[in-house]
Amino acid sequence: MGKEITNRSEDYSQWYLDIVKKAGLADNSAVRGCMVIKPYGYAIWENMKAELDRMFKESGHVNAYFPLFIPKSFLSREADHVEGFAKECAVVTHHRLMNNPDGAGVVVDPEAKLEEELIVRPTSETIIWNTYRDWIQSYRDLPLLINQWANVVRWEMRTRPFLRTAEFLWQEGHTAHATREEAVREAHLIHDIYATFAEDFIGMPVLKGRKSENERFAGADDTLTIEALMQDARALQAGTSHFLGQNFAKAFDVRYLGEDNQEDFVWATSWGVSTRLVGGLIMTHSDDDGLVLPPRLAPTQVIIVPIPKPAPEITEVAEKIMAACRGLGIRIDLDTDMKKRPGFKFAEYEMKGVPVRLGIGKRDLESNQVEVARRDTKEKTSVPLEGIAHYLKDLLDEIQDNLFQKAQDFRAEKTTYVDDFNTFEEVIREKGGFVYAHWDGTKETELEIKDRTKATLRLIPLEDDNETGKCVLTGQPSERRVVFAKAY
Amino acid sequence: MGKEITNRSEDYSQWYLDIVKKAGLADNSAVRGCMVIKPYGYAIWENMKAELDRMFKESGHVNAYFPLFIPKSFLSREADHVEGFAKECAVVTHHRLMNNPDGAGVVVDPEAKLEEELIVRPTSETIIWNTYRDWIQSYRDLPLLINQWANVVRWEMRTRPFLRTAEFLWQEGHTAHATREEAVREAHLIHDIYATFAEDFIGMPVLKGRKSENERFAGADDTLTIEALMQDARALQAGTSHFLGQNFAKAFDVRYLGEDNQEDFVWATSWGVSTRLVGGLIMTHSDDDGLVLPPRLAPTQVIIVPIPKPAPEITEVAEKIMAACRGLGIRIDLDTDMKKRPGFKFAEYEMKGVPVRLGIGKRDLESNQVEVARRDTKEKTSVPLEGIAHYLKDLLDEIQDNLFQKAQDFRAEKTTYVDDFNTFEEVIREKGGFVYAHWDGTKETELEIKDRTKATLRLIPLEDDNETGKCVLTGQPSERRVVFAKAY
Repeated sequence: MGKEITNRSEDYSQWYLDIVKKAGLADNSAVRGCMVIKPYGYAIWENMKAELDRMFKESGHVNAYFPLFIPKSFLSREADHVEGFAKECAVVTHHRLMNNPDGAGVVVDPEAKLEEELIVRPTSETIIWNTYRDWIQSYRDLPLLINQWANVVRWEMRTRPFLRTAEFLWQEGHTAHATREEAVREAHLIHDIYATFAEDFIGMPVLKGRKSENERFAGADDTLTIEALMQDARALQAGTSHFLGQNFAKAFDVRYLGEDNQEDFVWATSWGVSTRLVGGLIMTHSDDDGLVLPPRLAPTQVIIVPIPKPAPEITEVAEKIMAACRGLGIRIDLDTDMKKRPGFKFAEYEMKGVPVRLGIGKRDLESNQVEVARRDTKEKTSVPLEGIAHYLKDLLDEIQDNLFQKAQDFRAEKTTYVDDFNTFEEVIREKGGFVYAHWDGTKETELEIKDRTKATLRLIPLEDDNETGKCVLTGQPSERRVVFAKAY
Repeated sequence: MGKEITNRSEDYSQWYLDIVKKAGLADNSAVRGCMVIKPYGYAIWENMKAELDRMFKESGHVNAYFPLFIPKSFLSREADHVEGFAKECAVVTHHRLMNNPDGAGVVVDPEAKLEEELIVRPTSETIIWNTYRDWIQSYRDLPLLINQWANVVRWEMRTRPFLRTAEFLWQEGHTAHATREEAVREAHLIHDIYATFAEDFIGMPVLKGRKSENERFAGADDTLTIEALMQDARALQAGTSHFLGQNFAKAFDVRYLGEDNQEDFVWATSWGVSTRLVGGLIMTHSDDDGLVLPPRLAPTQVIIVPIPKPAPEITEVAEKIMAACRGLGIRIDLDTDMKKRPGFKFAEYEMKGVPVRLGIGKRDLESNQVEVARRDTKEKTSVPLEGIAHYLKDLLDEIQDNLFQKAQDFRAEKTTYVDDFNTFEEVIREKGGFVYAHWDGTKETELEIKDRTKATLRLIPLEDDNETGKCVLTGQPSERRVVFAKAY
């Protein structure tokens, strides 16, 4: 079954599509650029949602829900915002169909034209800030720390399941604050939550930093980003947190009366991660035999396979193991299929990335042992039945750590410091990965580097960096190194 | 604060809108017929979702996600279905905006017209069955027991928050089966789950039955419904479960090869409940002082109010109470606001329907007591601090039971058996509620009754009923009584 998917070295892009399909994560749909998220893929997203939602709530955020549709005129209120989204949005113009007077089927009823067209939300800043105007009068109404789990639509031309789809699922936080400092702090708080989630749950190491002005979110004063490295040495923007200044408050006239009785515009942030994270998860850990799942997000963490097939004495032991494991919070299941052979099942669970497989045969029972197989290293060990639940709990943690460590090693290997443009071009072309280089801080240079190498400026690191230098392209003075890469 | 809302007896409809607004549940939006679900309203919906999702998963269902958009031609495939939905749908015709060549703002780019218009899903049978065609080849692929949590759009002309909105949130289950019997069983299983959820969690008693052919879901062979009674004695359809026969399998050519090597069309069900349930919850329990929440769905079950305001010795005791309560799974919070007076806070929590309020003053501490106030009965009692957590846990159960019992009593009082049409008209007009009457089984009679009284046939009860009789309108023979009511 491993042979059903393309090797990474042969065709990385096809390998990814093969995994999405063969592991049952997603399917194409009849609608251009929209995917169907299949139950197994959706279960991974549900696990991501549950953890993120917990982290948001623990940091004081609440959920709400705003309309899917945005009046067209709202988009134009913030100049940069409309520039960023107008070219790729789904526009609702009518509200009724009618029987086709000239034949079969239905057609749009021309009399049901909307007075003002509605945009299917590509992001919700405009409709939300239009609402916040009614919710915010004084400093007592602040801060508003609101998140929304929703679908959004951006009419992308080139789509790939999870990584870039016309419709995708995400969360979008939209907060309102009385002071600039508080809003900036919020943007950083979320940036930290995103990085923690990516590393501790997806096991996907990320660089933290801010976007250049050119790569900022449309309407933001500052965009913080986490960037991961995929196995083809291309970067993936995995989550962004924006300090929006007073831009949307001004566009929608949202003011508050301060404790000092002074009126001022409200300060804002917005932030989001999406089903793209599932794509990042797949590409960070998987191998030529299929999906590899980090235990903390795996729908099934341990699968028990009876050998050669289910039998009462095996089921009895399996039930005991499962009860003990579930008591420790382990997601464990028993394969009760009578027809498929063990080899077939092994390949199937390998393809689906289940972190640990337990094989139990009658001989194992006689020796009070089970065979434990790890998905990440493919190692098999015989393990005593006694204390197996605690053994598995530790093993799952070990696998989680190992996957993260492996991804970190890969990233370290694919990170290069470069000081001249010839080397820069060569590294981007041959080796890929993250390139730390000096940059003169201008958009012109950024765009020329992109034109010549296809590498984009992924981020400007947040940490202090005292190493000044000269721009890798222009030789102009640079205050710090920034990170370039080819990206998804 | 209680005076801020209209009394039910004065204007029931305005009372409902006042509660939605004053309890902070939802807000109107800038988009016609679309509401904003505010954090407090959304928290109730989240609690509903969590319980329903658990019930679905425990009965073997899994979640997935299908596209928001449906190609226009899909709708026409099933004749009844298109008839039911074509007249109220949002139609996407373009995928790009452009700067207005004649002035400010943006306009639809005429060159970005879609080849085929897309409908924002009013329900997903068509796109899902088009997908199932690829997922189902043989009986081994069946059953598919899939649910989706999603937003849908139906362009309703008259809208009311939660009860009827152009966009609403819901879950829609779509299952595929090898046999008719299994699909019928599934529809009933879900019907039972819906009834259990409505009664045990919302505390909202429901009648169970099937819809008449005239009231069936567009495309169904059988629609099972749960119907609740609101305090204005009007019925609310609260959840439907449809046996779809092979209608969608035939429309989308979904066949499977049986164990007997025979090919046949697949059998289907679909079923859904929506944010309308929040409206049902509000209207079942609330009173002239505001929202009344059933404890099992209340975001906060117990609120502690320090009297006259927060002080270290009160906080210390409150923290202990909270720790003990949380250990028992009680959702409890402490009001730490220093500025508002207790009377104001009491009115606020009353308006928000928090089931239990705990008042703690210094004198209470001296006597090792707290004051416990119930939202449902308005009773106040002094309760010893010792064992308070267990006391509260029992009290919350008692409140839950009391609310359900009260609603049941109300329904019993508003249920009438009627045998002649004069009385029927009078009862519907004066008393309202559920009217059990004989019906001759024809659509003509059903529609004439609706025309003359505005009452619709809510359901045909499922239980055996040996009482035959004569139709209340036509005098024609009737095999059983059915239930009429004016409805939302």
